[in-house]
Amino acid sequence: MFITIPQADLTTGVLTVHRAVATNSTIPALTGILLKAENDRLIFMASDNEISISSSVKATVDTPGGIILPARYLLDIVRKIPGGDIKIQVERSNWTASITWGRSQFIVHGLEPEQFPKILFESGSEGVKIGQSKIKDMIRGTAFAVAQNESRPVLTGELLEILPSEVRMVAIDGVRLAMAKAEISWSGAAQRAVIPGRAANEVSRLLSSDLAQECTLSATENQVFFDLGETRFVSRLLEGQFPPYEQIIPSKFRTQVSLSTQDFHDACERASLLSVDNDRTIKIEAKEDLLVITSSTPEVGKVREELECSVEGDALEIAFNARYLIDGLEAINSEKVLFQANGPYSPCCIKPSDNENNIYVAMPLRTLGD
Amino acid sequence: MFITIPQADLTTGVLTVHRAVATNSTIPALTGILLKAENDRLIFMASDNEISISSSVKATVDTPGGIILPARYLLDIVRKIPGGDIKIQVERSNWTASITWGRSQFIVHGLEPEQFPKILFESGSEGVKIGQSKIKDMIRGTAFAVAQNESRPVLTGELLEILPSEVRMVAIDGVRLAMAKAEISWSGAAQRAVIPGRAANEVSRLLSSDLAQECTLSATENQVFFDLGETRFVSRLLEGQFPPYEQIIPSKFRTQVSLSTQDFHDACERASLLSVDNDRTIKIEAKEDLLVITSSTPEVGKVREELECSVEGDALEIAFNARYLIDGLEAINSEKVLFQANGPYSPCCIKPSDNENNIYVAMPLRTLGD
Repeated sequence: MFITIPQADLTTGVLTVHRAVATNSTIPALTGILLKAENDRLIFMASDNEISISSSVKATVDTPGGIILPARYLLDIVRKIPGGDIKIQVERSNWTASITWGRSQFIVHGLEPEQFPKILFESGSEGVKIGQSKIKDMIRGTAFAVAQNESRPVLTGELLEILPSEVRMVAIDGVRLAMAKAEISWSGAAQRAVIPGRAANEVSRLLSSDLAQECTLSATENQVFFDLGETRFVSRLLEGQFPPYEQIIPSKFRTQVSLSTQDFHDACERASLLSVDNDRTIKIEAKEDLLVITSSTPEVGKVREELECSVEGDALEIAFNARYLIDGLEAINSEKVLFQANGPYSPCCIKPSDNENNIYVAMPLRTLGD
Repeated sequence: MFITIPQADLTTGVLTVHRAVATNSTIPALTGILLKAENDRLIFMASDNEISISSSVKATVDTPGGIILPARYLLDIVRKIPGGDIKIQVERSNWTASITWGRSQFIVHGLEPEQFPKILFESGSEGVKIGQSKIKDMIRGTAFAVAQNESRPVLTGELLEILPSEVRMVAIDGVRLAMAKAEISWSGAAQRAVIPGRAANEVSRLLSSDLAQECTLSATENQVFFDLGETRFVSRLLEGQFPPYEQIIPSKFRTQVSLSTQDFHDACERASLLSVDNDRTIKIEAKEDLLVITSSTPEVGKVREELECSVEGDALEIAFNARYLIDGLEAINSEKVLFQANGPYSPCCIKPSDNENNIYVAMPLRTLGD
């Protein structure tokens, strides 16, 4: 292999795939990045056997070929080399790569490309086309609610559901649920897949916020594929039955409060500052046109925050882990939010006032007085 | 105490002093920030018995008075409150402060102000006037060379020397020395003080980079005082004899290399990337108009960097811990640097090519071949 590539493109390629590199693997090839030069492109590939990323950039290929280079050193090197053209030449007799520019030369020991596992980056079936920014928004609106503990492994992932007219993502961690939806036009069969939480976060880093950029999404029985054009991402799926989430979302409410998302969020944050128990308990009272948030810790102090709002239905007194409300409110993109409740002991719902694209459900806290 | 203060000023005051708060003290008052309202100003004060900071901002004082508030909560609160006027009212019966704005109220438990230790923020003698940015530069150019281990406690500090025409700061950690100087006009007696490394870094955060801002510097037998106007900083001094640093700085050289500071720095950084031993060994060869930096680690690879330079005197072959060279070069503000050596086993010197304000001395490494 002998190629010439602008430093910026080399850096982009390495940075795009490096998050899939295994940090700790008994298979040396997985701690490296595969470089493959062919047809005037340099392809980068990394995998930790759970997620895999491939990315391709333009390069001047004098001699096609490939090598696996240790990710740790390659990442350090591309971050420190100056702009301009970089030449990479592979010596097959001892599998070293010479990386040169100006009057600098790195010689890095690698592995022969054949040691890299064969990875399928295509599902083989037709996928769903959807804007990258839409998936990014859906992950932002749900990934925080993925379960952190492994007691029910399937809950450490997000359900991805492809339906004829919409894509849904759902995360449930036992005390709350976050769902996000996006419209699609899709004539294929409905699909369900549970994507590991880490994979959802990693693919989100690759997705563009640019509304015009599209992604093709498809799944097989045990893998999900995101085709972003030059970059492809594949993850294994989690096994197990994802809970019937629709039953968890309440459909009727005794109280509905409408108020500013930002003000509600900021007030919850402030009220939680003096709430030093593990639950970060805050209390919410809604009556007529007023929402009052309070918290109190003996020896430390107390907070009272009043917010304008409009209340429909019954007056409400309820306690929450502030973190749960804050997370839910951060997932809402709309200026106004609906906060819906069925008394102090039933799950509450938070959703944008002007669309149904995000739904967040959280259990209130039972406080000592209950 | 009852005052009104713009949120921005309250935040500035808390953020200015909070780094002096004791994170872990058996004296509760030291884990707090003292607020004192008098003469249309609010004074903030914090101390951990090693360093102390006081800062004063304008406020509307209806009733003078004071309170000590827990730094941890106060810091969280000022970071989260929105802009606008904040009212702080102290209830002396139970030493609580009510912090209110708009429709929000915090009530925070504090301590009576008398529990805060009496701290002297003035030396009592006339001080030296010097630009804040000059001290900031001197600390930046030396503090990195303060000893990290406590085997010789005096070396965990920086020597501050006030001489008739200049101020000097010097740090020595056993294998290297960094000195910085600034001109002053001063008719008082010469002074020497050893400032703890942490204190130097903390006062540096308070110093302005604005060339017009002045600082008055003075020392007593066991304290050093920095008067920045609204903000005052005092630190205890380290005891013990600081080594006679002038003997460490070589005065003659067999080789002098002149080259670009940035290029030398970047090449050392890159050469160190594949140098994975603890010493991060890199080798430097200087001959005629060429400086060659190499490093090599079996199994990993090797680097060769060539730089244009001008060499006076003998050719040179020398080995270094790359970190030591990089630190020294980062302390140099000039475009060009002089690298001066007396063969491979004697200390080398790095200094700006156009002034004597910074001098850095580092011991080379003896490599296996020696």
